[in-house]
Amino acid sequence: MTMDPEVGYDAPARVGMPLDEVMTPALVVDLDAFERNVAKMRDHAATMGVALRAHAKTHKSADIARYQMTKGGAIGVCCQKVSEAEALVRGGVGNVLIANEVTEPAKIARLMRLAKQAQVRVCVDDHANVTALSEAASAAELQLEVLVEIDCGAARCGIAPGEPAVALARRVNEAPGLAFVGLQSYHGGAQHIADAAERRATVAESTRKTAETVALLAAAGIPCPVVTGAGTGTFAFEGVSGVYTEIQCGSYIFMDVDYGRIRGADGGGLGFENALFILAAVISHPTATRAVCDAGLKAHSVDSGLPTVYDRSVAGTKTWAGVSYAGASDEHGTLADPESVLAINDRVLLVPGHCDPTCNLHDWFVGVRDGRVECLWPVTARGKLF
Amino acid sequence: MTMDPEVGYDAPARVGMPLDEVMTPALVVDLDAFERNVAKMRDHAATMGVALRAHAKTHKSADIARYQMTKGGAIGVCCQKVSEAEALVRGGVGNVLIANEVTEPAKIARLMRLAKQAQVRVCVDDHANVTALSEAASAAELQLEVLVEIDCGAARCGIAPGEPAVALARRVNEAPGLAFVGLQSYHGGAQHIADAAERRATVAESTRKTAETVALLAAAGIPCPVVTGAGTGTFAFEGVSGVYTEIQCGSYIFMDVDYGRIRGADGGGLGFENALFILAAVISHPTATRAVCDAGLKAHSVDSGLPTVYDRSVAGTKTWAGVSYAGASDEHGTLADPESVLAINDRVLLVPGHCDPTCNLHDWFVGVRDGRVECLWPVTARGKLF
Repeated sequence: MTMDPEVGYDAPARVGMPLDEVMTPALVVDLDAFERNVAKMRDHAATMGVALRAHAKTHKSADIARYQMTKGGAIGVCCQKVSEAEALVRGGVGNVLIANEVTEPAKIARLMRLAKQAQVRVCVDDHANVTALSEAASAAELQLEVLVEIDCGAARCGIAPGEPAVALARRVNEAPGLAFVGLQSYHGGAQHIADAAERRATVAESTRKTAETVALLAAAGIPCPVVTGAGTGTFAFEGVSGVYTEIQCGSYIFMDVDYGRIRGADGGGLGFENALFILAAVISHPTATRAVCDAGLKAHSVDSGLPTVYDRSVAGTKTWAGVSYAGASDEHGTLADPESVLAINDRVLLVPGHCDPTCNLHDWFVGVRDGRVECLWPVTARGKLF
Repeated sequence: MTMDPEVGYDAPARVGMPLDEVMTPALVVDLDAFERNVAKMRDHAATMGVALRAHAKTHKSADIARYQMTKGGAIGVCCQKVSEAEALVRGGVGNVLIANEVTEPAKIARLMRLAKQAQVRVCVDDHANVTALSEAASAAELQLEVLVEIDCGAARCGIAPGEPAVALARRVNEAPGLAFVGLQSYHGGAQHIADAAERRATVAESTRKTAETVALLAAAGIPCPVVTGAGTGTFAFEGVSGVYTEIQCGSYIFMDVDYGRIRGADGGGLGFENALFILAAVISHPTATRAVCDAGLKAHSVDSGLPTVYDRSVAGTKTWAGVSYAGASDEHGTLADPESVLAINDRVLLVPGHCDPTCNLHDWFVGVRDGRVECLWPVTARGKLF
C-alpha cells in the first residue's frame, strides 16, 4: 500500500484513489447500494401514491438531498433546525420542511430570511409560538406555510390530536402572514419496534388519531392538504393508510445496525441495504485474540448500540471471519478476533449502530464504487445545531 | 430577550453578549470554575512532584491547551491522533505526545513532518511498527522520541509489561532515528471506578506492573526517564507512587456526569467543579409535566449516560426545581418537569454525560463570566480522526 502523505489535510481521500488508501477512520458510502436504496424508496412512494419528503437530518448533505430530489423522487427534504435548513438551502436545496418547532426570536428572524430564499415550512404546537411567527412573517411581508404538529403517540413534541390541534390550525389560518398547510404527525419510537405486528399496531393507533384530526379539520372547514410523517421503519403502513400524503423517510439511504434489527411482515428485513460504513484500521494487536482499531466514540455514535463488523465485501474490501466490535472508548474500538485473522493496518468495515448521529461526527462522505473513491460529499450541515 | 438575528451564522455567540442571547444549543464554559480547576491540578502536580501533560483529547482546543501550558503547569499535552496533533501544533501548541500507536504509512509520513515543527512523541506496542517508524525517521533525518506502551490492565493497546516491554524498548533504542524515552502506562477503565478503595486497588496493581517493567529496564541498562499515564480519576494514586513521572489528566478542567459519580477517599467527589455545560432551550411544552429542549444526541454524547440538569446558577442562569433530562433523540431532549416550572424559550444548563465526545460535537466553546460571553474558542481539532 503506497499512500500519498499529502492526502487528508482537508479530507480523508481524493477522488480516484483506491479505497485501500483512504485515511481511517472515514465515513464511506457504497454508492451502488446507496443508489439502489434511493431508487427503491422512490418506487415505493410512487406505488403507494404518496409524496416523499426525504429526511435530511440523516445525512446533512446538500449533495445527497439534491440527489434524492433529482433521482430519488423526493419533492423536497425535511430537517430539524434552522441552521441546518440554512446550510441545505445554501447548498442548492430549494424545498425544506423544518419538521420541528422554532421558538427563539433570533431563530425566527433567521427562518424568515430563509423563507425568502427557498420554499420553507415549519411546525407549531403552541399558540404563543403562532403569534410570534405571525408577527415576524408579517413584518417580513411573507406568507409562511405552517404545519401543526400533533403528538400521535411518540410523547415528544406536538399538541394533542383532535380539537386542540384543530383550534391551533384555526389560529394559524387567522394569523397574518401564516398559512396552515397541514399536519405533522411522526411517531419516532415506532420506527424502532423490531416486531412487524407490534409496529403495525402502534402505527395503526397513531394513524387513527391523525385521521380523527383530519376529519375534525374537514368538519371545521379547514383545508388540510398535507399530512406528513412516517420513517424508514413504518412508511409501508402510513403510505397505504389513505391518511398520510407525505412520508419523511431518512435512514433508508444508508441503514444501520438498529434498522437492521427491524423485521418486515415476512420476518425478513426492511428491504434496504447497508450503504454506510466506518472504514477503520487496526492499530494494535496486543494479544492473539484482541485487536484495537482507530474508530471509537468520536467516529461513530453508540447511542443505539455498538457497530458491527460488516460480513460482506464492499468494493473489494476484505471480510474477517469471526471478528466483532467489542467495545468503544473515545478514540479506540476494541475488536474481538478469536481466530487471530487480523494484522496491524488491516482495514475493517463497520456498520454504525445509528446512522444519523454518526454522519454528524464527520466532515466528509467518501463515496466508493468498484474499489475507488468516486466522490467526496461534505457533510454540509454537520454541527448545525441551532 | 432581544436577539440579533445576524448572530450565529458562524458561531453561537459574540464576545460581550449576555449569556441569555447565546444561540442554543451551545457548549458553554464557566470560566471561573474552569480556571479554578486548572489551578487546582497545577497545584496537585506541583505538590506531588510530577509533571502534568494535560490530555487535549478532552477539549481539542489549542486555546485551552496553551492556557494549560502557560497558567496550568502543563509541560505539554497529549492527544490520540496525528491529525489532532497537527491541529494543535498549528494552533501554537509546541509539545505533544500522541499517546497512541501510529501505524499507517501515510500517518507515519505526516507524523515525521510534524516532528520537524514541534516536540512530538509517539507510542509503540509492536516490533514491526518500530521498524516502520525507524525507516521514516531516518529518511526524514529525525530523532523521534518514542514511548513503549504497556498494557497495565486496561486491555486495550499496549505490549505486555515486563520482558516483552523491555525487548521492545531495546528494539527502539537500536533503531536508527528513534530514541526510547519511557513508558506509556494508562489504565482507562480505572478512571471510572466509582469506589475509591476499589479504584486504588486497581491502580496499585497497574502501578506494580509498571514498576516491575521500570526495574527490568534499569537492570537491562536502558534509561527510562519518563513514565506517563493516569487520568482525572486516578492521578492522586499514580502521582504519589514514585513510579510515574508524568500524569495525563484531561477531564479535570470540565468534569461531567460520569466523573461526578467518582468518589474520593473521604466519600466526597474528586475536588473539581463542573465547568462545561450544554446551554439548551425549551422549544415545546406539550403537557403539564413534559417539556422538550433543543439538545439531543447531536449536541451531547450519551455513551456514559444522559446529561443532568445543573442545579446551580452559572453567571446568572436560572435553576429549575425538579426538572430532569429524561431522554434523548437525534435533535431533541425530553425534560421531565413534574412541577411545570418551565416555559417555552426557557434555558436549561445541562451537565454532559461524557465531556470528551461532547466537545467533539461542537465547533465553539462559549466562555462565560459574570453573565456575559468573554471568549469564543474554536474546537480546533474537532473531527480530527485520522
